[in-house]
Parts: sequence; C-alpha cells; structure tokens
Amino acid sequence: MKKYIEVYDYYKNLIVSGQYKKGDKVPSIRESSSILSVSKTTVQSAYFELQADGYIISQPQSGYYVSDAVHTLQAEEAAEPENEKIIYDLKSGDADSESFDLALWQRYIKSALRQQDRLLSYSAPKGELDLREALSVYVREKRNVVASPNRIVVGAGVQALLGILCLLMKDRSTVSFPTDGFEQGISLFNGHGYDVHIRDKDADIIYVSPSHMTSYGDVMPIKRRLELVRYSEQNGSLVIEDDYDSDFLYQSKPTPSLFALSGAGNVVYMGSFSNVLIPGIRLSFMVLTSELAERFEKMQSCFAQTASKTEQIALCGYIRDGHIAAQTRKIRRHYTAKTKLLFDELKKQMPRLDTSISENGLAIKIKAKFDGGKEDFENHGMSVHVYSIKDGEIRLALIPSALEAERIPQAVTIIKEVLDYA
Amino acid sequence: MKKYIEVYDYYKNLIVSGQYKKGDKVPSIRESSSILSVSKTTVQSAYFELQADGYIISQPQSGYYVSDAVHTLQAEEAAEPENEKIIYDLKSGDADSESFDLALWQRYIKSALRQQDRLLSYSAPKGELDLREALSVYVREKRNVVASPNRIVVGAGVQALLGILCLLMKDRSTVSFPTDGFEQGISLFNGHGYDVHIRDKDADIIYVSPSHMTSYGDVMPIKRRLELVRYSEQNGSLVIEDDYDSDFLYQSKPTPSLFALSGAGNVVYMGSFSNVLIPGIRLSFMVLTSELAERFEKMQSCFAQTASKTEQIALCGYIRDGHIAAQTRKIRRHYTAKTKLLFDELKKQMPRLDTSISENGLAIKIKAKFDGGKEDFENHGMSVHVYSIKDGEIRLALIPSALEAERIPQAVTIIKEVLDYA
Repeated sequence: MKKYIEVYDYYKNLIVSGQYKKGDKVPSIRESSSILSVSKTTVQSAYFELQADGYIISQPQSGYYVSDAVHTLQAEEAAEPENEKIIYDLKSGDADSESFDLALWQRYIKSALRQQDRLLSYSAPKGELDLREALSVYVREKRNVVASPNRIVVGAGVQALLGILCLLMKDRSTVSFPTDGFEQGISLFNGHGYDVHIRDKDADIIYVSPSHMTSYGDVMPIKRRLELVRYSEQNGSLVIEDDYDSDFLYQSKPTPSLFALSGAGNVVYMGSFSNVLIPGIRLSFMVLTSELAERFEKMQSCFAQTASKTEQIALCGYIRDGHIAAQTRKIRRHYTAKTKLLFDELKKQMPRLDTSISENGLAIKIKAKFDGGKEDFENHGMSVHVYSIKDGEIRLALIPSALEAERIPQAVTIIKEVLDYA
Repeated sequence: MKKYIEVYDYYKNLIVSGQYKKGDKVPSIRESSSILSVSKTTVQSAYFELQADGYIISQPQSGYYVSDAVHTLQAEEAAEPENEKIIYDLKSGDADSESFDLALWQRYIKSALRQQDRLLSYSAPKGELDLREALSVYVREKRNVVASPNRIVVGAGVQALLGILCLLMKDRSTVSFPTDGFEQGISLFNGHGYDVHIRDKDADIIYVSPSHMTSYGDVMPIKRRLELVRYSEQNGSLVIEDDYDSDFLYQSKPTPSLFALSGAGNVVYMGSFSNVLIPGIRLSFMVLTSELAERFEKMQSCFAQTASKTEQIALCGYIRDGHIAAQTRKIRRHYTAKTKLLFDELKKQMPRLDTSISENGLAIKIKAKFDGGKEDFENHGMSVHVYSIKDGEIRLALIPSALEAERIPQAVTIIKEVLDYA
C-alpha cells in the first residue's frame, strides 16, 4: 500500500472514531512527518486527500482542522426523529392484510421481471404502451372515459401527474381546490406560480374529487356534476377530475364521471391504483384532453416517467386478466363491511352518539360534546381525523380500513372513554 | 335484465359499432318507444344513462345526438404514432443483457414482496428509513458524502427529486445549467418560475454534473471542482451536484465529490441507480443541506414519495449485502471494455478517422468531413449523438452500452459508409 494512504487512513480513523473532534487542530505537515517518520511530501499528499474527502480543512496561515461535515453526522444521527407508536389507526386509510392477494401480484411481478429486454431501456415518458392500451379499455368500460392510449399518461402517484399538468397548462393562471386540505396539490400549483383559490367556480383550472369531496367521503351528486360540467364549458375552464375512491362507492353503478358527462372535452381524468391494490404500489394515470396530449407530445423530452417499469408491466397483465375488476369488488365489500362493523359497535356502546356512515362507505362521521383535545386520542395510541373542536363540540371521522376487524371493539371502548360518553 | 338496460345497450351498440356517427340525430323518445315497443319512461331512463355515459347529448328544443367523445376515440386510434425501428443504438445509453444479474435482483424483489405489512402502508415522503440508512453508509464510503439518513430523500428519478428542490428553494431565483441539453431540468425550473441561465457562475443555484459535464462524458477536473466550491461558498449560492455516471470513471479512485470538497455545506448531492442497475429500475436519491432538510421536515405533508416501495426495500437489501459495489465494478469493466472494442474497430476500419474515447470511458467522440445529415444514420437504422454539422464537418458521439459486442463490426461498417470514408 502507498505510504501516503497509510497516513490518510491513520488520520481518517482518528477523526471518524471521534478521537479528533470537530474544529480540532491537526498536526502540521512538519509535525506529522516527524511523528510518523515519513517524508513531508507523503504527509502533503495524505492531507490533500483528507481535505478532498472532507475530513479536514486548511486555514491559511494557521494550519489544518477537523471539518464540520464529519461531526454534523453524529449530531444529526442523535437528532433522528422517533415516530410515536399508533396502535389504533383510524386515519391513514392504509390497507389491511386481508384486502389484497399479494401472492397473485407476486406472480405478475415475477413474469414482468422475466421480460429482461424491456427492463434494459427507460420507460416512455407517457409510460408503457401496452399498459396504456389496457388502461384505455379499463377506464372506458369502468367509467365511460373514452380516450385512446396516446392520451393516457402513467405516473407514480397523483402528485407526479399534477406536476406534469402544471407544466402543460401554463396558458392558465388560477386554480380552484374544493378545500385547503390537499396540501400536495396546492403547494405544487403554488410552486408553479398559479393563484390557488378555494371553491372558485370561475378559476381557469378546477380541481375536483367528485367521489371524495370531503375527507368525510361525501360524493358529488349527479345534478352538481352536470352543473359543474356545463359551467366549466361555458367558462372555458379546465376541469381536473381526480376519481380517487370512486371504486368504493356503495352504488352498484357509481355516479358517472365528469369526463363522460362532458361533451366539450375540457376534463382531465385521473385515476390511481394505490387504494384498489395496496399503497405500496405507486401507480396512477391521467387521461389528457386532446389539446394537452398534443402539448405533451411536443414537450416529450421534458418529462421522465416516474412509475416503476416492472410494476407497469405487472399491472398491465393484472388488468388484462380481469383481476382489477375482481379486486375492486373484493375491497368494496371488505371495507364497507368493516365500516358497518365499526358503526354497529359505536351504536352498541354509545346508543345516543351522533354518528353516520359517509357516502362512499369508507368513513364514519361523529359529532359529540367534547372539551378535550386531539392529543387525548393520541395518548391512547389512536389516530383519527379531527375536523373541528370548538364550543365544547368535536367533529371527527374514523377510517377503519387499516384496523383489523377484531380490534374494533377495543377501539370503540377507547373512543367512548376519550369522549367521556355517559 | 331491466327493460331500459336493453334499450341502453341497443343504442350503445349502434353508436360504438359506428352505425350511428358523431352528430347523428338519435330517434326521439316517442319514436324509440314505438320502434322498440317499450314505454316512453323506459326510453327516458335509457337515454338518461346514455347521456350520463357520454354516448349521446341532448340539444334543448331539438333532440338527442351522438356525442363527440365516442368518435374522437376512433380518430385518435388511427393517429397512434408508429416509432421507427432502431437496429444500432449508439445513443440511448440503455443497458445490454449481460450488464445486470436480473435473477439476483428478482430474489430481493421476492423477499421485499414477502414483507406484506410494510407494503400495506404508504412510503414516508423521504422514502423508506432502512434504505436511507443504507444509502447514508453507501455514499459516505463511496463518495465521502457524510450525511445522516434524515438528510437523504429517495425518489423515482432525478427529475422527481428536482421537482422537490424547486419547492424547497423558493428563496432563490436564478439557476445555472452547464448546457441547454438537460431539458427535463430546465423545463422544470422554468415552470417553477426560476430564471434559467447557461454557465452562469453567479446564479443563486448552480446545477452541475461533474462526472458527466458534456454528453461527450468529460469529467470536471479537481482544480475546477475546488474553484467552483470556493466561488459558490463566497457567493452564497447553492450547488446541485448530479453525480450521474461517476460510477463509470476510469480511475480506480474517482475525483472527489463537490459535496466532500465543500466545507460550507452548500451542496446538494444527487445519485441514481438507473445506470448502475438497469434503466427499468427508477431509483434516485439526494442528500439535502441541513437547511433544506429542515425545510423538508416542515413541508413534509406537501410531498408524496414517488419510488416504488417494493423496489426501495429490495435495493436496501441489495446494498447491505454489498452487491452494488460488485455490480459497479462489473459494469465499469463491461462498458469500458465495450467502448474500447468499438474504438479499436473504428481504428481498424478507418485508420485516419479523428476519434477518441471520452474521459468517463462510456462514449467515443468523432470529428469527420461530412456533407450529409443526421437522417443518413437513421436511414440505416442507427441512432448516434450528433452535436454539430457545419462547414462540411460533423461532430458526434457514439455510446455503445446498449449495442451487443458482436454487432459492433457491422455498426462501424455502416458509420464508414455514412461518413463516406475512403
């Protein structure tokens, strides 16, 4: 091994081990050469490397010192935050272990990983063509969203897709959101310089989630959908329809999509699979208007595909073989049954509680007398959606999807205690 | 089956099959009821559904007409673009089949898919903690980038990460790129309202890719790295170091990273695995400055993780077990050998050709007399990086990574023909 490397390692170890602390002065080149009995030039090369690698810094006319970088590490590691344990998750909307057949999904992932040639290249900016073809059929049959594959763009989550839209819609300047709750969308549009309004039907861009209007899971009635479509057409505004949670609707036939209701083609349709499959799978897609699709073509080179190619290939097969439809029916039954279970338990333990099931069947709304705070739930290891606590009254929603059915009774007992129900 | 559904299907089929064309008038409710001998109300419900599903639209005081939506589909399907065949890919930088042990990766994906509980929840905005811990060790050992896991953010590709930075750096307004070639970055910063300059050392934000300065694969020498670091510190500007391709550098010990050279902590380090593993795997990460890491914490709720959770878990194990290091050595040998092969073949067939291997060992530069156009290569099913064609001279680069070794001789013969070498 080269001599200077030994010197390098000698000091590197002293520093990393913490025997030399941040700001400590390191022996001068002359001192080192005598301490370690090596030539000055050897020490010089070693010190250069130590400097280059960020272990020491040189102060002109003063000498060499241990740099901050190394020690910020230890400081930060100490600061690594600890996330407190949630035992009763009635907020996240995560999935439970019975909701999804992972073994089946694994088979599709495996066969995707066998398609080596495809994995050797980058995915097209819009996503894999065969997946977009499958999606074109899927949204047409499911939501009567009629569009060819070249109007469909795949991405890793709705935020990734909104990021693309932000770049495509620069001819518009104001955007409306139904509530101020969707921070991921709002911060993104703000960041791109759009004026963000709340519930402004005259905005250039109108973002709505008709099957999930509130975190309570209220659904936009057909009448309001038709009004929104007509008004936006007259106004020449663009509607972004995030069809999130439409799969969970009680009705056998869900309310028609805005995209299908609109003849004018001013609606961008967005769908996601994170909730039909499992959150761990980040796959969303959007159906662009013809105009935006053309712009995307022109700007192709500005966009990189974010979704995993393996998962795109797997999802394509999964859809073609009809598993999405089956899975959708399964979770709808599964989660709405669980919500009903929680509802009945609430009624059983608290007959006089003001409570109701949300329209999409996924959440339970509660209104109750309350003079405590949010932390009262957290202190019991429970997370819930708190909307308001004022005038001695609390409004909250419970989303039981992630909570195992057998733990619902204990959960309700805790809620009863926190609400001090008597 | 309900009567009105039959009527619904009857007209739906006429429309989808194309027997009723866009704009055609549909029989009135009265007419339909007599044609199909069903009650008016049955027809009414059917027409409502047809309307709701976007097949027909009603014109007040006129009647029902076939809507545009249905037919745009056929029009667009016709317009679906055909991408012409590239037989000799000397441009994309895609991987070849020998470069990556997919079977090994499959094992890690499989074990990741066994961690059901983890896949049931959304990934943290920064990415999976254990992966960030593994990355913290990885970049420290490999590039002397010293930072704790809570300063590391994972994402699906560099563009996804730059999108996050654009939101975190709103206190800065100008950004400098080394060339105008990186459209994905430039359009993103433009979209966020930053002033984009080219090679402006006084910009608030300086994006550089020191190991891949030009598409020729030139490497930034240590001297210029130190200058850049010092100057940016004095200027209080933020440096974004995209360490893309550093893995391929000839030297046993690659040039130190800007992050390591900088004592002032004003460098954001970015790394990607798409080129070390395979492009099909979209996994990148960045090391934030302490300041930006704090801002990220505050804005947590604004960011959604884009990278596949399964692939994050798999990569974590893959790194911990030391496969990344081995894989890096493997592809470096593999690709630089292939470049050498192409170089020798060029010399063999065209002894007088002005050609040289790029510093990162991945590309070959060529300068030659030429009075043709880019299309001359494409006409031979070959894609190359053309930089300039002027004054009867062409400058281009060949990136052989995706081309199988045994096809190099034919490729060179084609280049010889196109360049009309004699």
